[in-house]
Amino acid sequence: MISEQYTPDEPIVAIATALVPSALAVVRTSGKNSIELVSKCFSRPKALNDAEANTLVYGWIIDPKTYEKIDEVILAVYKAPKSFTGENMVEIFCHGGTSTVLGVYQSLLASGFRSAQKGEYTFRAFINGKADLTKAEAVREIIGAKTDESRRRAANRLQGALYTEIKTVKEELLKVLASIEVGIEYPEDEENFSETFDDSFLKNIISKLKILHNSWQAEKLYQDGAEIVLCGKTNAGKSSLFNLLLKEERAIVSDIHGTTRDFIESYVSFDGIPVRLFDTAGLRETKDEIEKVGVERTKELISHSDAVLYIIDSSCGFTDEDEEFLRNFTDENSKTSEIPIILVFNKIDKAGFLYEELKSNKTVPLEKLPFRQNIKIFGVSAKTGLGVQELIKATAEIIQKSCASVKDGTGLGSERQKDAIEEALESCEHALLCTKEGFTLDAAVHDIEDAIASLGELTGEITSSDILEAVFSEFCVGK
Amino acid sequence: MISEQYTPDEPIVAIATALVPSALAVVRTSGKNSIELVSKCFSRPKALNDAEANTLVYGWIIDPKTYEKIDEVILAVYKAPKSFTGENMVEIFCHGGTSTVLGVYQSLLASGFRSAQKGEYTFRAFINGKADLTKAEAVREIIGAKTDESRRRAANRLQGALYTEIKTVKEELLKVLASIEVGIEYPEDEENFSETFDDSFLKNIISKLKILHNSWQAEKLYQDGAEIVLCGKTNAGKSSLFNLLLKEERAIVSDIHGTTRDFIESYVSFDGIPVRLFDTAGLRETKDEIEKVGVERTKELISHSDAVLYIIDSSCGFTDEDEEFLRNFTDENSKTSEIPIILVFNKIDKAGFLYEELKSNKTVPLEKLPFRQNIKIFGVSAKTGLGVQELIKATAEIIQKSCASVKDGTGLGSERQKDAIEEALESCEHALLCTKEGFTLDAAVHDIEDAIASLGELTGEITSSDILEAVFSEFCVGK
Repeated sequence: MISEQYTPDEPIVAIATALVPSALAVVRTSGKNSIELVSKCFSRPKALNDAEANTLVYGWIIDPKTYEKIDEVILAVYKAPKSFTGENMVEIFCHGGTSTVLGVYQSLLASGFRSAQKGEYTFRAFINGKADLTKAEAVREIIGAKTDESRRRAANRLQGALYTEIKTVKEELLKVLASIEVGIEYPEDEENFSETFDDSFLKNIISKLKILHNSWQAEKLYQDGAEIVLCGKTNAGKSSLFNLLLKEERAIVSDIHGTTRDFIESYVSFDGIPVRLFDTAGLRETKDEIEKVGVERTKELISHSDAVLYIIDSSCGFTDEDEEFLRNFTDENSKTSEIPIILVFNKIDKAGFLYEELKSNKTVPLEKLPFRQNIKIFGVSAKTGLGVQELIKATAEIIQKSCASVKDGTGLGSERQKDAIEEALESCEHALLCTKEGFTLDAAVHDIEDAIASLGELTGEITSSDILEAVFSEFCVGK
Repeated sequence: MISEQYTPDEPIVAIATALVPSALAVVRTSGKNSIELVSKCFSRPKALNDAEANTLVYGWIIDPKTYEKIDEVILAVYKAPKSFTGENMVEIFCHGGTSTVLGVYQSLLASGFRSAQKGEYTFRAFINGKADLTKAEAVREIIGAKTDESRRRAANRLQGALYTEIKTVKEELLKVLASIEVGIEYPEDEENFSETFDDSFLKNIISKLKILHNSWQAEKLYQDGAEIVLCGKTNAGKSSLFNLLLKEERAIVSDIHGTTRDFIESYVSFDGIPVRLFDTAGLRETKDEIEKVGVERTKELISHSDAVLYIIDSSCGFTDEDEEFLRNFTDENSKTSEIPIILVFNKIDKAGFLYEELKSNKTVPLEKLPFRQNIKIFGVSAKTGLGVQELIKATAEIIQKSCASVKDGTGLGSERQKDAIEEALESCEHALLCTKEGFTLDAAVHDIEDAIASLGELTGEITSSDILEAVFSEFCVGK
């Protein structure tokens, strides 16, 4: 899409809603002569051509070849530069039948539009100065957001919180640059520059960049989500707990596969984190030997999970079998040894011991689990719901444990942004070294200019076509 | 929904697009104070409240409780009576992320809207005189249309072609009524009324009603589609033909189930008719005995199909096995004996005989099929595509055989409409009888009044809440 031959004004069309029968659908056009071209397949061309910006026009879409009426529609008319793309735009609101939407789309193609590529609308918004890259990427994020918290974080970036933060850091870097350049202009002072230079500004910038850099891990978690595996012996109540978790927290994707595979899965929100939750088949021993196949499959699931909820029937207590199962898929040498395990004592409403007792760890046979550090223990009742909210909260905390979460909406929104911050950070740290160790000031200037360039790449002020290609190719059509 | 307590002005909200991640989504509101209520969760309440009709307003949707910004949106503002429902309306165009759309929807609910019921927008359009029932039903049809031809027929009804036709018939009935009433006013002529009465008008009306009545079968076919089963011996080339049919005609639903069941299915368009096409497992004999299970399953499919394409490998010719298979699932006593069978000689490019020969029936062993009448024969090559278009056209004709298709867009759009026409027709025929057989003129007047009432029910001028309930309960939410 993005080449030197790219013609921003070219008229493009895309179906912007899912092609699934529904009440309404939106077909979107953009380009210099988009209004004129839509009028070629519209029952009231004069009304459309005379329409003012930001108004709605009623009429029918008509096949420009057969003159057949396709659908009764409302057109939204936008004029450059006040539109999403910054170009003239017409959005067609038609009925959401598959054949209708395709009929409208075909009529527009026949009138002279070409099919838009992925992210081409946002790309045009970017090249026409309507959005920087952090906002452009936030548009993609907001469409893919799986929980309210994920959407909230993307909305903050869309509002420009991250852009403003980066802009501030850049302005501060420019000030530092100016102060060093003073040193270059008066070379007589250069020798003792490192003594006179106040590095507190640069240190402050470095600390801000570090916070930004660390934010990505948490933001990534809110974008991509985590995987959690429920396992335990047969009859420990895994499925009841699974269903309860789906019910308590809104199930994001409700298609539970009752498959031939040994587990079912669903998306739930754990305190705002999108969690892909797996309910595995109950583990059991056959002929005094652990059923190998089941354990192998569960082990496979665990190997790429972010946490394991191991369910125990409280009325039976922690048994030797539990110990063996846990050993089996969490042995020290395996790659799963680092994955957090949470022991969940289910059915505490039925158990003989007190919930308080459990919480004070008195019932927990930690001596049986010498092979694991930091095992968390929770008591719940999937029947009454007791303890479940605490379990969700604690699990969410465990998943986020190493993630520095930025609360004010200035967290990074993509791997690409993190890489740019990383580069800026390295340049700044090197600049600090230069000012300290008596390098020539030119080296420090060079470093800080590099850091500014990295931040410019992040927001899109300085861009290469590679970066743009990477950013916009991940969009869906119509955005 | 439709009761005497129904408050048309009550503010309602619905998600009008499919809840699937996509570029854009539409959330729709309607009701007397809808503009004011949306402004409660909008970043620019004044701009919205001051907005003129048919204009677009840019801003953010804001959670009215937490003041959190949910999404950057465009609002379309419509004012009564110039809107789809005839009431004030605001449509919210937001980003198509699931969490975003639900966030916008929740904010509107929190601002005082209630969730709209199925078809409630169209229902309001109807009660506010924006659409008669034939147009309202056409909205539902257009959303469900599976082929371009189905959509075309619905669009004609949406334009009012059927409404106009019904209106014409009704006006003609009023004229007939007037002419009879002249007879009543001058009772001295009543005795020889049947001799003087010109029944050509009434006969003309009856013939129009009959055409309308007969149109339903064809319209139903275009709405619901037909089922066609491909079967034949293993290696006859069924799957190649199936794939070719999917390719030549646009596959409407492309999810082909490679299931454990013995067939795969897909929607294709046969000359505009939506066809659910089944490709069955190849029939074969095991140990000189027909594989019972396969035949049973195919037979089951055939039993509710509209036509069977029986594929034969031309290079082998029509064999005794083919005869046995055909006998097996089309025996005279079975309920399948009436289903049309088309013998398709595949691989004619390889066969030793000429295509012309086949067309002139010389290769067809009709003497082997004494148990079936009117078997059609076609030669095709799934490899080269030869004859396939002819097969599609002929099959479409066979499916429609008994359907009187109305070409000018005045066909009936629903079972309900057909029932109303049926009643009108019966009343008119009875009226004709009355005028002929010397009943009292009052009886004829009564009949014609009944016929007018039936047509009024069809368009919705005369309605009961039962009819309305039945019409609008089949809509999707947001329409």
